[in-house]
Amino acid sequence: MTELGIVRRNIKRADREATDSLAKYGVATVHEAIGRVGLLKPYMRPIYPGASVSGAAVTVLLHPGDNWMMHVVAEQIQPGDIVVAAISAECTDGYFGDLLATSFIARGARALIIDAGVRDVRTLTEMGFPVWSKCISAKGTIKATVGSVNIPVVCAGALVNPGDAIVADDDGIVVVPADWVGKTAAAAAAREANEGEKRGKLASGVLGLDMYKMREPLEKAGLKYVD
Amino acid sequence: MTELGIVRRNIKRADREATDSLAKYGVATVHEAIGRVGLLKPYMRPIYPGASVSGAAVTVLLHPGDNWMMHVVAEQIQPGDIVVAAISAECTDGYFGDLLATSFIARGARALIIDAGVRDVRTLTEMGFPVWSKCISAKGTIKATVGSVNIPVVCAGALVNPGDAIVADDDGIVVVPADWVGKTAAAAAAREANEGEKRGKLASGVLGLDMYKMREPLEKAGLKYVD
Amino acid sequence: MTELGIVRRNIKRADREATDSLAKYGVATVHEAIGRVGLLKPYMRPIYPGASVSGAAVTVLLHPGDNWMMHVVAEQIQPGDIVVAAISAECTDGYFGDLLATSFIARGARALIIDAGVRDVRTLTEMGFPVWSKCISAKGTIKATVGSVNIPVVCAGALVNPGDAIVADDDGIVVVPADWVGKTAAAAAAREANEGEKRGKLASGVLGLDMYKMREPLEKAGLKYVD
Amino acid sequence: MTELGIVRRNIKRADREATDSLAKYGVATVHEAIGRVGLLKPYMRPIYPGASVSGAAVTVLLHPGDNWMMHVVAEQIQPGDIVVAAISAECTDGYFGDLLATSFIARGARALIIDAGVRDVRTLTEMGFPVWSKCISAKGTIKATVGSVNIPVVCAGALVNPGDAIVADDDGIVVVPADWVGKTAAAAAAREANEGEKRGKLASGVLGLDMYKMREPLEKAGLKYVD
Amino acid sequence: MTELGIVRRNIKRADREATDSLAKYGVATVHEAIGRVGLLKPYMRPIYPGASVSGAAVTVLLHPGDNWMMHVVAEQIQPGDIVVAAISAECTDGYFGDLLATSFIARGARALIIDAGVRDVRTLTEMGFPVWSKCISAKGTIKATVGSVNIPVVCAGALVNPGDAIVADDDGIVVVPADWVGKTAAAAAAREANEGEKRGKLASGVLGLDMYKMREPLEKAGLKYVD
Amino acid sequence: MTELGIVRRNIKRADREATDSLAKYGVATVHEAIGRVGLLKPYMRPIYPGASVSGAAVTVLLHPGDNWMMHVVAEQIQPGDIVVAAISAECTDGYFGDLLATSFIARGARALIIDAGVRDVRTLTEMGFPVWSKCISAKGTIKATVGSVNIPVVCAGALVNPGDAIVADDDGIVVVPADWVGKTAAAAAAREANEGEKRGKLASGVLGLDMYKMREPLEKAGLKYVD
Repeated sequence: MTELGIVRRNIKRADREATDSLAKYGVATVHEAIGRVGLLKPYMRPIYPGASVSGAAVTVLLHPGDNWMMHVVAEQIQPGDIVVAAISAECTDGYFGDLLATSFIARGARALIIDAGVRDVRTLTEMGFPVWSKCISAKGTIKATVGSVNIPVVCAGALVNPGDAIVADDDGIVVVPADWVGKTAAAAAAREANEGEKRGKLASGVLGLDMYKMREPLEKAGLKYVD
Repeated sequence: MTELGIVRRNIKRADREATDSLAKYGVATVHEAIGRVGLLKPYMRPIYPGASVSGAAVTVLLHPGDNWMMHVVAEQIQPGDIVVAAISAECTDGYFGDLLATSFIARGARALIIDAGVRDVRTLTEMGFPVWSKCISAKGTIKATVGSVNIPVVCAGALVNPGDAIVADDDGIVVVPADWVGKTAAAAAAREANEGEKRGKLASGVLGLDMYKMREPLEKAGLKYVD
Repeated sequence: MTELGIVRRNIKRADREATDSLAKYGVATVHEAIGRVGLLKPYMRPIYPGASVSGAAVTVLLHPGDNWMMHVVAEQIQPGDIVVAAISAECTDGYFGDLLATSFIARGARALIIDAGVRDVRTLTEMGFPVWSKCISAKGTIKATVGSVNIPVVCAGALVNPGDAIVADDDGIVVVPADWVGKTAAAAAAREANEGEKRGKLASGVLGLDMYKMREPLEKAGLKYVD
Repeated sequence: MTELGIVRRNIKRADREATDSLAKYGVATVHEAIGRVGLLKPYMRPIYPGASVSGAAVTVLLHPGDNWMMHVVAEQIQPGDIVVAAISAECTDGYFGDLLATSFIARGARALIIDAGVRDVRTLTEMGFPVWSKCISAKGTIKATVGSVNIPVVCAGALVNPGDAIVADDDGIVVVPADWVGKTAAAAAAREANEGEKRGKLASGVLGLDMYKMREPLEKAGLKYVD
Repeated sequence: MTELGIVRRNIKRADREATDSLAKYGVATVHEAIGRVGLLKPYMRPIYPGASVSGAAVTVLLHPGDNWMMHVVAEQIQPGDIVVAAISAECTDGYFGDLLATSFIARGARALIIDAGVRDVRTLTEMGFPVWSKCISAKGTIKATVGSVNIPVVCAGALVNPGDAIVADDDGIVVVPADWVGKTAAAAAAREANEGEKRGKLASGVLGLDMYKMREPLEKAGLKYVD
Repeated sequence: MTELGIVRRNIKRADREATDSLAKYGVATVHEAIGRVGLLKPYMRPIYPGASVSGAAVTVLLHPGDNWMMHVVAEQIQPGDIVVAAISAECTDGYFGDLLATSFIARGARALIIDAGVRDVRTLTEMGFPVWSKCISAKGTIKATVGSVNIPVVCAGALVNPGDAIVADDDGIVVVPADWVGKTAAAAAAREANEGEKRGKLASGVLGLDMYKMREPLEKAGLKYVD
């Protein structure tokens, strides 16, 4: 449950080094490494392909058609942070454009994740500031209602606590609880090491059926081959 | 309300010079300049990124699965026009491909806005003919039912009168009533001049909170900072 | 109706030469050539633009959240095949990533068509392995339930029999029954020859209204010109 | 295009008697009678089945999450009116509940058509005040931004001018331009008279194929019967 | 793949007695009895609650916005049949109303399943003629393009062959291949007998955990209880 | 973030008396009383109209297509509880039917809230067991993967902690944090007392414009009346 009208200034961010290391494993691997939880819904899409980031979550709860709190959250950004913006009801308006991006970049933000729309996407692309959003919309917003900063929010179906690690790339976005970042990075590293070997075998023509020893369990499960 | 079976040949187009000037401000700025109205719904997307156009609307109302009137509207295109196509019921068929694009380009059209599907998108991209559409579909259409040309249409949720100015880019599409084009261009120019200065301040680290003097109204609205 | 737990090893593939020739005509032309049937729904989109393929369908039916049969279908792939994956209920999980793609490529697959999600899309793009899917999702799957391989499946609204020809490009995906491939290729070739001439006329300014002799039928259908 | 901040007090309502007569023909018949135009999109649904109304449109344009103008429009309602509410961007909030309904009923309103959400639907049902809406949502709204009353609006994809006739029932909603109401009522009456006779024939087992003399045109169009 | 312009007059219907018996088991039970396949997508909804039918499928393929073939299929209906209507592209128009229903009833049809819209739903409800559809829409259709009757169709994601058994109730719609009807009815009967006993135990407070002996497999699968 | 494979047996439920009192205020009033937060998304709909419940949340996290944990959560139900079921990815399968409902009722459950599908809805309606769900689907599920019970879950976009109060009626569903139940009930009671008086005034013809003293602020905000 969210308290409205609150800005929490001191949050405990996930371990910086481990958080930073997550981007290179990618969302799919990190998501497996933490046990297949924490994904935001797949309607969230990057405004341009190829971006890959990780960082600590600074959260903001906004109201439909109102981006006032975007200016409030800007002040709470520290270098390496990723802003995670939730809306209190479904909305497709464009909450964020090149001016706010300029400010976010000046504060050291790495990306914005927003469960609503953004605009000025061509300029954002040229600036190299990555955004994952529900949609793109030129529709501007007003500044009339107070929300909150650095409270737990539900963004695109996932709970994000301030300070959690966020990993985002072309496959989507995953949230890693701050306490889990170290072990998740270790598990992701182990997974990836393991994948290199598998990739080589598969490339040489070995079948997953044999590599993973699936033939017997498939037969037990009732699979039958016919001609 | 639409009359069917009518082609209006003489329409009053928005002032050419002012209309042409709108593209450079972009959809987001123009939308703010006219008071945040006139946007088409955000499900309308360009078939390739980076296109940015403005021009006078030539409108056409088609029926589901039937693109006969596309050939009728082609004759009414004048250089600098943008065709705005509405459908009398929801449809995802591909009403427009490279042959029609060849004809539209020969007539001087700058773009197509269509609340349905298009096809041959790779060729259209190579030809550099921009289209904003609801979807992409290879499904062809028939030529059996008469619609209308240059009547007022509702396209993707917005009313478009023939001769209105259309501005379209990666952020979406906005319609500017023909009578408002001059003052809208002036307001957009003023807005943009103003934004350059703001951008410089924000880039230097000044917060929007201070630049826009928001701290006092936020406090009055009940915002509280906690540690 | 689908039988579960069956892998059919011997399927009759559509004529190889004719199937291979279909890619160059493109989905829109092939779809017209077979009489405007066989299209998959337009929500199916390529993970990167510009891919254009044709090949014989190897089909697989999977269950929601379970990609076990992806390893089973890999063994049935022959060079030139396209895997068509249907799910027994709606699902957005990521069934396929770079490891499976490595295996599919080693077997000679040309593409994957899947009515669900895929992941590792940046790597798939770098590998040049084209996928048409309903969505992109990092959400992994389990391996617990048996489905079937090379049975008739309904994928994105279209019936695909194993061995049918599949054509896919930026406009979407069309399935051509194995028996129809020869005549469809011939019809597509005839259509395309015909289009070149039309394109030239339209580019020179001739209107479709005149080229297709539409003025009289439009008048009969009640179209009226007003000033 | 909409002007914001305007309340038009004097509007010309469609002829009362003809407008009132439209409800008994129903939306499907009226929609055919005016030439198959003017329907609102089918996502608009009644909050309870069985309501059937017609009346003159009083229009209101609201902003996302803001129902301030609902109180402004209430004053402009005259007995027999139907309020048509459009939103300047997509929104699912609950703009209207039992208090506003009490006020609307006191003013003589017959129904509300709203391209957003409503709430208190159980009470509205008990009160017998019919509403057609995009969704049902308990989410309340604020009162911060000015919109307009009795300007042309686009509601659920259809243009509605103040004073137009609205007809709504379980099949949906249709708008009839004020000038067309008389001839539309006449055409609907003729249609309905005609339908009674057809219904009798069809009930006795006569086929539409014979009653409408379709066998010959179907054969000409290429239809073939096989065993 | 569908052939267009064909009406097949002689189809082999599923065994009448077994087909008729399926309605009483309901869609959920029949779906389990045939191995969890054959369901139409859940967006298909009945126009009124409480209807429950089974019958042999008479199929029709229509085009977007065109209901001409509805009159052709009417002639092929035999008492006890259910008409299954597919559209060659997505469409929300109202293809069917009270006049066609009168004709269908006169021919002995039990229901209509249509992957598009219907209208006159209040009258259809009063007539007691059940329809499962994608939506409700007053939008009428034209009669211009030929489709087919009694060919295999894909309706709401499921393959339906003419003569297959259809079962529909408030839970949705399932298709049972004609050859499987006898064994499916037997399996459904066995399932239902079994369910009565289970229901009694569960009502008395026995937990499914114990009745189905799940505690051990859950523990093996790693489930842990904490306080 | 969710831990998998955990069943928490001892949870602190919201105060029983206050929780029970919330149903009579209804979701819309409770939602206003807690400051317009905590609503589940409006796509969640009751399977039959007229149900109105409140109770303490027992939560369960399930996987797509797998309802194994439904049997685990049944054991944790205490009289007066409402089960809140979240799925780890989007799914429309029917997780719950009349057998599970029989068990839930035997344990004293008041309702089920599930972000997926349910089946046997006719029987559930006859049993009077209310369910709010994303959809209705006859598609059954398997029992293969372990989830968790009584952990925090995100259901239809809202965070629900075990023991929170849930209120659900025809307007939707709202979650009230366990600690806030007392003050929320008090605020709701105050609101409702206040509404009775307002209702009387509005029914007598007093306008909201006057009752809420809106004329001056509207004029200040720029509203203009024209004739």
